[in-house]
Amino acid sequence: MTGPIPAPRAGDLSRAGDPPPLEPPDVVRAAYAELFVTSLPEARRFWVDLLGFVVTTETTNALYLRGYDELTHHNLVLRAGPVAACGALAYRVRSDADLDRAEVFYGALGCRTRRMPAGHTAGVGGTVRVEDPLGFTVEFFASSAHPQRLQQRYDLRRGAEVARLDHFNLVVPDVPSAYSFYSALGFGLSETIEDSTTLYAAWMYRKQTVHDVAFTGGAGPRLHHLGFFAHEAHSVLRMCDILGSLSLESCIERGPGRHGVSNAFYVYLRDPDGHRLEIYTSDYYTGDPDHPVLRWSVRDPRRRDFWGHAVIPSWYSDASPVLDLDGVAHPVSEIGQPPEATVGADGFTAL
Amino acid sequence: MTGPIPAPRAGDLSRAGDPPPLEPPDVVRAAYAELFVTSLPEARRFWVDLLGFVVTTETTNALYLRGYDELTHHNLVLRAGPVAACGALAYRVRSDADLDRAEVFYGALGCRTRRMPAGHTAGVGGTVRVEDPLGFTVEFFASSAHPQRLQQRYDLRRGAEVARLDHFNLVVPDVPSAYSFYSALGFGLSETIEDSTTLYAAWMYRKQTVHDVAFTGGAGPRLHHLGFFAHEAHSVLRMCDILGSLSLESCIERGPGRHGVSNAFYVYLRDPDGHRLEIYTSDYYTGDPDHPVLRWSVRDPRRRDFWGHAVIPSWYSDASPVLDLDGVAHPVSEIGQPPEATVGADGFTAL
Amino acid sequence: MTGPIPAPRAGDLSRAGDPPPLEPPDVVRAAYAELFVTSLPEARRFWVDLLGFVVTTETTNALYLRGYDELTHHNLVLRAGPVAACGALAYRVRSDADLDRAEVFYGALGCRTRRMPAGHTAGVGGTVRVEDPLGFTVEFFASSAHPQRLQQRYDLRRGAEVARLDHFNLVVPDVPSAYSFYSALGFGLSETIEDSTTLYAAWMYRKQTVHDVAFTGGAGPRLHHLGFFAHEAHSVLRMCDILGSLSLESCIERGPGRHGVSNAFYVYLRDPDGHRLEIYTSDYYTGDPDHPVLRWSVRDPRRRDFWGHAVIPSWYSDASPVLDLDGVAHPVSEIGQPPEATVGADGFTAL
Amino acid sequence: MTGPIPAPRAGDLSRAGDPPPLEPPDVVRAAYAELFVTSLPEARRFWVDLLGFVVTTETTNALYLRGYDELTHHNLVLRAGPVAACGALAYRVRSDADLDRAEVFYGALGCRTRRMPAGHTAGVGGTVRVEDPLGFTVEFFASSAHPQRLQQRYDLRRGAEVARLDHFNLVVPDVPSAYSFYSALGFGLSETIEDSTTLYAAWMYRKQTVHDVAFTGGAGPRLHHLGFFAHEAHSVLRMCDILGSLSLESCIERGPGRHGVSNAFYVYLRDPDGHRLEIYTSDYYTGDPDHPVLRWSVRDPRRRDFWGHAVIPSWYSDASPVLDLDGVAHPVSEIGQPPEATVGADGFTAL
Repeated sequence: MTGPIPAPRAGDLSRAGDPPPLEPPDVVRAAYAELFVTSLPEARRFWVDLLGFVVTTETTNALYLRGYDELTHHNLVLRAGPVAACGALAYRVRSDADLDRAEVFYGALGCRTRRMPAGHTAGVGGTVRVEDPLGFTVEFFASSAHPQRLQQRYDLRRGAEVARLDHFNLVVPDVPSAYSFYSALGFGLSETIEDSTTLYAAWMYRKQTVHDVAFTGGAGPRLHHLGFFAHEAHSVLRMCDILGSLSLESCIERGPGRHGVSNAFYVYLRDPDGHRLEIYTSDYYTGDPDHPVLRWSVRDPRRRDFWGHAVIPSWYSDASPVLDLDGVAHPVSEIGQPPEATVGADGFTAL
Repeated sequence: MTGPIPAPRAGDLSRAGDPPPLEPPDVVRAAYAELFVTSLPEARRFWVDLLGFVVTTETTNALYLRGYDELTHHNLVLRAGPVAACGALAYRVRSDADLDRAEVFYGALGCRTRRMPAGHTAGVGGTVRVEDPLGFTVEFFASSAHPQRLQQRYDLRRGAEVARLDHFNLVVPDVPSAYSFYSALGFGLSETIEDSTTLYAAWMYRKQTVHDVAFTGGAGPRLHHLGFFAHEAHSVLRMCDILGSLSLESCIERGPGRHGVSNAFYVYLRDPDGHRLEIYTSDYYTGDPDHPVLRWSVRDPRRRDFWGHAVIPSWYSDASPVLDLDGVAHPVSEIGQPPEATVGADGFTAL
Repeated sequence: MTGPIPAPRAGDLSRAGDPPPLEPPDVVRAAYAELFVTSLPEARRFWVDLLGFVVTTETTNALYLRGYDELTHHNLVLRAGPVAACGALAYRVRSDADLDRAEVFYGALGCRTRRMPAGHTAGVGGTVRVEDPLGFTVEFFASSAHPQRLQQRYDLRRGAEVARLDHFNLVVPDVPSAYSFYSALGFGLSETIEDSTTLYAAWMYRKQTVHDVAFTGGAGPRLHHLGFFAHEAHSVLRMCDILGSLSLESCIERGPGRHGVSNAFYVYLRDPDGHRLEIYTSDYYTGDPDHPVLRWSVRDPRRRDFWGHAVIPSWYSDASPVLDLDGVAHPVSEIGQPPEATVGADGFTAL
Repeated sequence: MTGPIPAPRAGDLSRAGDPPPLEPPDVVRAAYAELFVTSLPEARRFWVDLLGFVVTTETTNALYLRGYDELTHHNLVLRAGPVAACGALAYRVRSDADLDRAEVFYGALGCRTRRMPAGHTAGVGGTVRVEDPLGFTVEFFASSAHPQRLQQRYDLRRGAEVARLDHFNLVVPDVPSAYSFYSALGFGLSETIEDSTTLYAAWMYRKQTVHDVAFTGGAGPRLHHLGFFAHEAHSVLRMCDILGSLSLESCIERGPGRHGVSNAFYVYLRDPDGHRLEIYTSDYYTGDPDHPVLRWSVRDPRRRDFWGHAVIPSWYSDASPVLDLDGVAHPVSEIGQPPEATVGADGFTAL
């Protein structure tokens, strides 16, 4: 893969000849996402009553939710809106100085950026929002209120007993470019799906797990799913059982199963607006400086499901639109390479 | 053990020379227990709010509770009373004719018996109550209302997710006599704790599990614990975590751990009145007609805890008093043999 | 369903006017199956090395295997043969007298029967083999050698940690007839899949579990699968992980998942000859004399998979041929009703 | 606690007046430990055959072991020696420059340091060994060979299915000094046990988990235990079951149970030489720059066992001696404060 995928360099996507590459903000981790939902009461029933997310703050138009281990204000902001979409993906950065760095870094790439005052998003300090080169609205924040520590309040746990946000999975038409840009942002690469000519998907991290963000090739930019961490596999099974109990089994899109990539035990659910989330367990440590990349062949039927099951087509085709800084849906570009879903385990590409 | 323990024969405890031995009632299984508690609200908080038992019926003075798999009316009756005690242990029998057989069988042994009309215990038909030769009040019933089937209502499950009553564990001063009597009642023997001279404990069954009733040597008659079945070990762990969350960890008397006897994964809890219950998982099938007995040496430290941990003294010493047919506490006789708790793994008896 | 399905009566399938109906053998439980495999070494690798079955006895042409809880000689006999097929399904009966009853009972129905001497099947006493009215070769035995008790040899456990055989699942063209015949044999009914006119599937038991045998409508007689019990869901997940590790994920046909019917957590695997087995956990107690039947609508998408996933077509279409008393494959009759697989959740029958 | 515990400053333990404080090496994580054992074959049986550690390399006098997730050469070096002792605790540092920094940093504190050539410890590059101010021999390394990735070789997993080393737990007579020194080394503080006057124990981290090292007050320096991470609680239970199966239950010193501190589900085992290890699951993310400290009162009975069980005395009293750079056992100093084990939950100190 060293051939087809250019080695990442800071400033890779900046205009040629710009010396020196700018210092990116020091991203700590994927921290929260903002989703627009068409019915806040229905979203509340799904995310809070069924999945068991903790409500940190509730306003007329928004719900701020977190997992049981989370020690910052929230992992998810649900806002009432006219259409279902992803408003922003938020990374925590190390310090306020990193907010300045973010503004300069993205500005130098020609990206629109916007300072948001403290409190625009409840519980966090001032943020910098950017429209990134991939088309996603990304929010950076450096400080957050600490809510009540609930990790050992087993008496309160319900649903999937989600611990915290783990990662964003994004659909992009050009995975190598997404990989290069996030490399320049300082993200490490843990796993890939590829063949001799194409990088189909990439998993990248800042915190010491398999990923904070992953890229899947397809029409984009779109949000494929939000991944939330749970501690043990039986919590995943339990979540499915609860949905079956209530005849809501149609919310279960795919799994439970074991991923080849990441080795996680997972299930994919769809919320009432079709937003997809993953309940994700297992994972592994990636904090060593020479952490080796695990490269999966696109022909290995175990890459997406270690138990060999076919992936349901909607999982490859559906994703949430993303909004720009003004709240307008970002146009979607078609993928410029053979989509992974069409590559057979029998060794040829269907397209 | 064939030496010290007389082979069971029907009518064993009846007067010598009475031919032929009377036919015992056809016991189906241990079905429910009646416990008197000194505060019904506190008992409700423990059994319902924390442990997650389902309330089938509630009256001013009583709570009728069941597990999530149970398809008869209840597994536990909690009644308000002046002192904490066990009112009755109830076995389901196969038919109404078995109620008659119970009356005759126990009457012939000189035991007091009493017909209770349908509805005396909510949800069951007419019953026969007896003061059995071991000093316990035992209730037989042949029919029960079927409550709503909740097994697949995972959305309702809480606490230990108890499925059903599994067994009664009784403290008796004379384990061989208890064994002989229950053999005459048609119970099979699955496991024992013994040495060359003494039977310290016995596990006996009618349904196809390790036991419906077990006998432990000690001052009795007293109720050692009620065993409730749960499907998986993580439910046991969860129950303990919930109690710890609420600083109610003092309710956890012993375990979680693995039993040598029965191979079950267990925890013992004490309710606000000190009544002991076990959350009990695993178990095994005993329905074959020649099911072999598993005999544990009293010197095997794994018999009570397969992981070798010492048993807390209260577990051997404490138990609930039992009431007679008139609701008067049965006097307790001291054990007539070395108690198991004093037999060291080092091969000598401390007493 | 009381309409379309005739109430079971003893001797239902005997010639009209035969008074009184014959007493059926007292079946204790489904105990073992005999499968013919085309390569004993490959079968050994699958069943023993991967799935972790215990070898009780091995001969030149046969392997006798059991689960870790099993206290009779075997749960599965694998025999080398020219074609993959099911040789016999074996039920344990209560006593030798039940062998005689089996011979008379089936003989009176016009079925061929054959006495097999002790040792024909290793580890069991003399048996009676019959070609039953449904076309299956059924073996009855009354006594078995007790192998070493391995339940607490956790050091030896591997693979799926199978405890024992749980049930046979049979494909028959006429489910109501199969149900009626097994009712006459004394089997209880625990669950069904049906609509107002058709009984699509039935689960029937002698031991106190959901089933010893189940009937699924389709071209038959054929063996759909053997169900083996494991204690906890994580053993099912582990088995799949092991198969994925070895790139044998194609052995995983369906699941893991939760059944609506039986509430079991399951996975279906296929052995090297295509014989299907289920690793089956959870289950519930059915020993009460008035155990209520749970009737699932064929339109409920949760009946086969509580989490709503479509059933892979091979699961409905494929099954193992069965051999007659002479080892000749039994001809297969087409199903005489709409197959369940063609009934959509949208409320109409595709056929 | 801000009162009694001095705020950490780099160079805290260096000679007063030395400006500026020296830059400590950039520690990545606790990586491996070196234990001397009196019988390598017996140690092999325990660590490899029973616990299931993977052998990376084996020499005449040493075994190099790792967990299934580990991507560096080893997590544990077992060396044959005349007495059971801890030879060294090894931290990975970010780069070779950090080896130099370690040498200068410890040298400036008056500590003996020694360069070890690549290969002295198999699989790692050159290291710096130091006798740290607390009396432990600590080894720093910057590079390691990558062994075969076994994380998804579920077919090979055995025993406790240990994933990787998680932490060192050290007994020191002066916990505040240990805390201060490791703060100067750049470690964060996640949890403590304390009261208004005393810091009894501290958990400190570099990687984004609860700890890489913890300090418990007592006669020291001694190694209390090595903590190894496993993914799910059932692996902990399984390990205990295996030991019970083989009548090795005396290896199980404490647990399984839930820690209050760290929230981990744990068990403590002792190897044939008495070295203690913990199988440790659950844990939580600590990577945020303002990660809040969780401070447990020494009077909270849940701090050491969330389920309230008393801690067995040997767990407080026993620990492994540590060797200096020349392989001589470091003398042990008595604790200079009330030991935690003597502080009752009833609110007074027993000493």
